[in-house]
Amino acid sequence: MGIEQGMITIVIGTNRHHAKSKWVGNWVKELLESHQVESQFLDLADLPEDITVSALYEKSGKNEQLNALSAKMLQSEKFFFIVPEYNGSFPGVLKVFIDALPYPNPLAGKKASLIGISSGMQGGGLALSHLTDILHYLGVQVLAQKTKLAFIEKNLKGETLGNDLYQQLLTEQVDAFLNF
Amino acid sequence: MGIEQGMITIVIGTNRHHAKSKWVGNWVKELLESHQVESQFLDLADLPEDITVSALYEKSGKNEQLNALSAKMLQSEKFFFIVPEYNGSFPGVLKVFIDALPYPNPLAGKKASLIGISSGMQGGGLALSHLTDILHYLGVQVLAQKTKLAFIEKNLKGETLGNDLYQQLLTEQVDAFLNF
Amino acid sequence: MGIEQGMITIVIGTNRHHAKSKWVGNWVKELLESHQVESQFLDLADLPEDITVSALYEKSGKNEQLNALSAKMLQSEKFFFIVPEYNGSFPGVLKVFIDALPYPNPLAGKKASLIGISSGMQGGGLALSHLTDILHYLGVQVLAQKTKLAFIEKNLKGETLGNDLYQQLLTEQVDAFLNF
Amino acid sequence: MGIEQGMITIVIGTNRHHAKSKWVGNWVKELLESHQVESQFLDLADLPEDITVSALYEKSGKNEQLNALSAKMLQSEKFFFIVPEYNGSFPGVLKVFIDALPYPNPLAGKKASLIGISSGMQGGGLALSHLTDILHYLGVQVLAQKTKLAFIEKNLKGETLGNDLYQQLLTEQVDAFLNF
Repeated sequence: MGIEQGMITIVIGTNRHHAKSKWVGNWVKELLESHQVESQFLDLADLPEDITVSALYEKSGKNEQLNALSAKMLQSEKFFFIVPEYNGSFPGVLKVFIDALPYPNPLAGKKASLIGISSGMQGGGLALSHLTDILHYLGVQVLAQKTKLAFIEKNLKGETLGNDLYQQLLTEQVDAFLNF
Repeated sequence: MGIEQGMITIVIGTNRHHAKSKWVGNWVKELLESHQVESQFLDLADLPEDITVSALYEKSGKNEQLNALSAKMLQSEKFFFIVPEYNGSFPGVLKVFIDALPYPNPLAGKKASLIGISSGMQGGGLALSHLTDILHYLGVQVLAQKTKLAFIEKNLKGETLGNDLYQQLLTEQVDAFLNF
Repeated sequence: MGIEQGMITIVIGTNRHHAKSKWVGNWVKELLESHQVESQFLDLADLPEDITVSALYEKSGKNEQLNALSAKMLQSEKFFFIVPEYNGSFPGVLKVFIDALPYPNPLAGKKASLIGISSGMQGGGLALSHLTDILHYLGVQVLAQKTKLAFIEKNLKGETLGNDLYQQLLTEQVDAFLNF
Repeated sequence: MGIEQGMITIVIGTNRHHAKSKWVGNWVKELLESHQVESQFLDLADLPEDITVSALYEKSGKNEQLNALSAKMLQSEKFFFIVPEYNGSFPGVLKVFIDALPYPNPLAGKKASLIGISSGMQGGGLALSHLTDILHYLGVQVLAQKTKLAFIEKNLKGETLGNDLYQQLLTEQVDAFLNF
């Protein structure tokens, strides 16, 4: 890679345990390793249980458990967001996490790459569009390429990806993001 | 009104206490009363503190405190959503509440009317667009007219509205919703 | 149907000749006929060739060929929009047609039902979201149910639909629109 | 500037003559000149009058007048899009121009910066969101910062900008784009 890469944070965009999002995160981690790029997970399953009352608004930045998590965002210049589709958009907890980040937001000027997942046919198309609007609002540059893993259950082989096109799209997206 | 109206639920779309959203909800309630239409509040400040771990996914429908709140959605055929703009969209807690509704979702076939609020100039334009996508996904009919109360702080007179255009737009929206 | 239905206009949302959009329009027309509801086509293939210079802005309402077409919009209270996906959204000519409608716009207070078509997997999801934003801006009520006919080529049997799920979704959408 | 800049093309996103969009384009051109960066206009007022029938679909790439215009897109790696709000989104002619670009699209991998303009309060917020979706679909990287020039008529001083905040936002956006 021509561009020096620091630690990349892979955000698992749901707090549902054992989610397929984690598997997709693993595939991304492996692709990054094949480029000798370090990465770490930030799993929304680790959010404080009472985040909606202990870390928003006037309490922003005052929840130590959340601050430890947010610190991963501060250490990285680049993020992958693994985004399962819930109710036609991304999970509410992902936006709660964004709303709980300290002010002024620590993401401005950083870079994000989005991957959508769905059981149905959309692959999170609207979810990724909504999230792009929000990240752009926050001053985060968003990679144009956004793989949409529709019909995810039909395209798994155990915990690995059993679809060559999806594999190619993810590989190209990771390459593009390292050069972004 | 030609259309018989049941109880309308006014959803205060944030869990921030003392929010201006509550005042806007009051203005809507008064407009409904002027048409002899009953309404009740559903304030997201009343969400369970641990909603993100106690009421989502496999625990959907199993949190009694949330069920009491969700019951208001079941009693009504029509909803106002009062939506403050946070980070370029609606508050994450509003989507968490939607994600926590029992499955199959109880909103399909019902009707919603959206009002945006912002300190800045957008009035929640993107927030209302995102929320419309989600409500449409859930089979909820969304009124086309969506008042956007931009620069809200400059347009208040105490806890009342000090802007004639905004007052007219809200009045027209309430009228349109009663006929929707 | 409980609701008295006037003539419904089916807008073929592209000016490409022999488009699959026309076939989808025919399926909708047949479904309407099964309910004894009259409908007519408005095919964007009939737009004036020089619409972008003869019918926009200060020339709005002054192009007789376009006025004849627009008149169909005036005669109807309800519209279907058949929307093929081009470049991640709906065809530019559809928006040109909307931009060329006389001012004040004749669609306010009317009702629309949207159907997306794509060769790929999205089924026009973003196209229909963008079009919903525009129609809501114009005061047009948009039915929540929006069938997305993804992978259209694989789901045809000649000029008819060879996919039972799609057939069911279209049937339900037409039913819902007649009651909207 | 650390990044070597080639010619930047400023797309005037409407074919309306004497549009304020042209003035905004001029302000951007001057800001680029202050950085010794060359730029050229691509004015949609120069589109072929019959573009909707002579340059789309099977005729893509076969209209010489359009090809001359498209060539400007090929010469540049970076584009500004000046986008007036029409009917709640961007002008239909802008999408027609995008739909008429040769296939495979010549924009993939290039970079765009968007500026919205409106008479009303939105500043083209939804227009820029829709256009971002389309550009991302085409593989164009879109700068997060997008100045929204709301209430444009009230913020002009003749043909120049009479609003210090807007001037600052445009200056920052141009700087950010040169480093993008």
